[in-house]
Amino acid sequence: MVSFALISYKLRKNPFLLVILPIISILAVFLIFIRNGEHPMLGIENLSISNHKWAHEVENTWYFPFTNKFKMPKYSYKRKQSNWLFNDHVDDIIPEGHIAHYDLNKLRSTAYAAVNKERVLILTPMQTFHKQYWENLLQLTYPRELIELGFIIPRTKTGENALKELEIAIKKVQSDKKNQRFAKITILRQDSQSFDQLAEKDRHSILVQKERRAAMALARNELLFSTLGPHTAWVLWLDADIIETPPTVIQDMTSHDKSVLAANVYQKYFDNDEKKMAIRPYDFNNWRESDIGLEIAANMDENEIIVEGYSEIATYRPLMAHFYNADGQVTDEMELDGVGGGCTLVKADVHRDGAMFPNFPFYHLIETEGFAKMAKRLNYGVFGLPNYLVYHIEEFNT
Amino acid sequence: MVSFALISYKLRKNPFLLVILPIISILAVFLIFIRNGEHPMLGIENLSISNHKWAHEVENTWYFPFTNKFKMPKYSYKRKQSNWLFNDHVDDIIPEGHIAHYDLNKLRSTAYAAVNKERVLILTPMQTFHKQYWENLLQLTYPRELIELGFIIPRTKTGENALKELEIAIKKVQSDKKNQRFAKITILRQDSQSFDQLAEKDRHSILVQKERRAAMALARNELLFSTLGPHTAWVLWLDADIIETPPTVIQDMTSHDKSVLAANVYQKYFDNDEKKMAIRPYDFNNWRESDIGLEIAANMDENEIIVEGYSEIATYRPLMAHFYNADGQVTDEMELDGVGGGCTLVKADVHRDGAMFPNFPFYHLIETEGFAKMAKRLNYGVFGLPNYLVYHIEEFNT
Repeated sequence: MVSFALISYKLRKNPFLLVILPIISILAVFLIFIRNGEHPMLGIENLSISNHKWAHEVENTWYFPFTNKFKMPKYSYKRKQSNWLFNDHVDDIIPEGHIAHYDLNKLRSTAYAAVNKERVLILTPMQTFHKQYWENLLQLTYPRELIELGFIIPRTKTGENALKELEIAIKKVQSDKKNQRFAKITILRQDSQSFDQLAEKDRHSILVQKERRAAMALARNELLFSTLGPHTAWVLWLDADIIETPPTVIQDMTSHDKSVLAANVYQKYFDNDEKKMAIRPYDFNNWRESDIGLEIAANMDENEIIVEGYSEIATYRPLMAHFYNADGQVTDEMELDGVGGGCTLVKADVHRDGAMFPNFPFYHLIETEGFAKMAKRLNYGVFGLPNYLVYHIEEFNT
Repeated sequence: MVSFALISYKLRKNPFLLVILPIISILAVFLIFIRNGEHPMLGIENLSISNHKWAHEVENTWYFPFTNKFKMPKYSYKRKQSNWLFNDHVDDIIPEGHIAHYDLNKLRSTAYAAVNKERVLILTPMQTFHKQYWENLLQLTYPRELIELGFIIPRTKTGENALKELEIAIKKVQSDKKNQRFAKITILRQDSQSFDQLAEKDRHSILVQKERRAAMALARNELLFSTLGPHTAWVLWLDADIIETPPTVIQDMTSHDKSVLAANVYQKYFDNDEKKMAIRPYDFNNWRESDIGLEIAANMDENEIIVEGYSEIATYRPLMAHFYNADGQVTDEMELDGVGGGCTLVKADVHRDGAMFPNFPFYHLIETEGFAKMAKRLNYGVFGLPNYLVYHIEEFNT
């Protein structure tokens, strides 16, 4: 009892120790837990929280796990681990005793996507960051906690710039209010041949178009295979050049409950004759097969491809771009055989069954058009919405 | 100072309070942190740790995030949040200020996989859980922290049983020593048509074989698309019937540095004539194309398929199964045109570029054989190791 006597004596001399002592004790406990790098409430061993590396740092993935879902583990399979202070049980990070499996049969992609809390993955190959693209994305009304974003960016100077701007934009939204954040964002730098090496003005000549689309097919596949999760219900392919969609585009398009569904991509421009803004069709990759198209394909060499929208190959295919009717219902549907990637919604199961973007001739088709053919080979229907317009940015070829 | 005087008085009467007081204070602090459901060191708001739902619980995914990589976030983008006790800064769960991207160019799949810490995803469609399969998996010497496992299990009675046994086996290893755990395990229940609806003895008749392999192709795609991550360097397709491989199978096969590489699948059996154990070839899906095979394909209807290994279609293709030479080098390679899924290693980039398992006729091939063709269309080389044997379980048709 020597020390007690000593403490009693000191206390009698300075009663403030009475207040300070508990605080010092608390501090000591915190220091021990944190400095030792062991936080027994979390099962983290030998790792200081501040030294710990999060997955994205090790893997070079930019991963924003923002929804509650991704935050903290629940514990089970208790393993005793004595603790000098409380002799508490310290649990491992192991899932609950009732083991949950991922049951693909119960994963739904329905007409009531938002109500059913179906997760949507928006995928965008990006060579240029358009402020309007991002602003349009932010004004979507589908719950952000159900939206994951995936970007693939070419390894070029343009790509480098796009990446920087994208980073700034993402930081802003993902460090803002928690309920305003996207569930997850992944940015990939492209491995394969870059898809943006052609100047904007050369981009539509038929020869460079073929090469560009083959490279784009690889980019889309890399993005798709790396980001699709077992929980994904829908994939929305939204090109970086699409700068205006209705805010309800996800709800509108999912409500059709189609396996593959393309919006009609138009462009707003200034009509010099009329001296006012007007619209014109932009994307000609949404089409229905024609007899002439089939005949051309039948006579082609195995490795030749048809790219729609060029006068060099007149397929006489009905193009959805020409079916727009300003007086029609926006919900009108038409069956398609080829689609573009401008704004195309795909049930995740279609991809999960194997539908990807061939960069090799697949029935003389490649990229998104080959994808549509592959979806059809997997017995899925492919549709388009001729009167549902989304807008491509105007390119200025001065 | 009334209370101080009172405490001083009580202390003088009972100095043991001096010891108890700090402990009570500490308990109080812990209770406040945990009962309030707010743990300011972790940025978790309004959520008691015990009520929190981990991703797999919400998504019905069985996800074991065991490596250090997946444990805890590092913080940045500090947001001040006052705390009554320490007035500390509470950080959000947002990745570090230096934003890391996933650079697919720097993801390597090399001959020195283990040294370079390349992550391997082992994928197994499983209709029956064989104890020997699991034991073989556990004896692999490739670092488990670099191995992810993915299973897909059919929605049948057999599948149900396999799942139960698999669960028990997984729980055991994943709740054992931390450094003995696999990086991640995902189990999917199949969505598409089940691949095990045919009794084992019917399984090899050519007609059911075609149907079975089309269903298996969908299962493989569902598994692949759902589990491949941006960090995956290699995918090892290992069938649930493969019960014996060299412990160094991953190191051995990655060291060949091939895009697609198949081991030779044999079977051990008791030779009744010789009265001793012997081996015989089992998997005939690893083959080289022959002129006769090409000729048969050329004359086939677009939707017909060739399944190798049946006398009904004599392709005279050289089969790797027949190239085994007990006196040869285990490292001997041969070029292939078709592969099986028994034990086949694939660089993740091959899949990421789009190579999947067609369930529709692709150059008159489906499933793994169609995959090999697709890999070749994507300009990847396909090889086999005729003298590197792995063993299929013996089926007893009593």
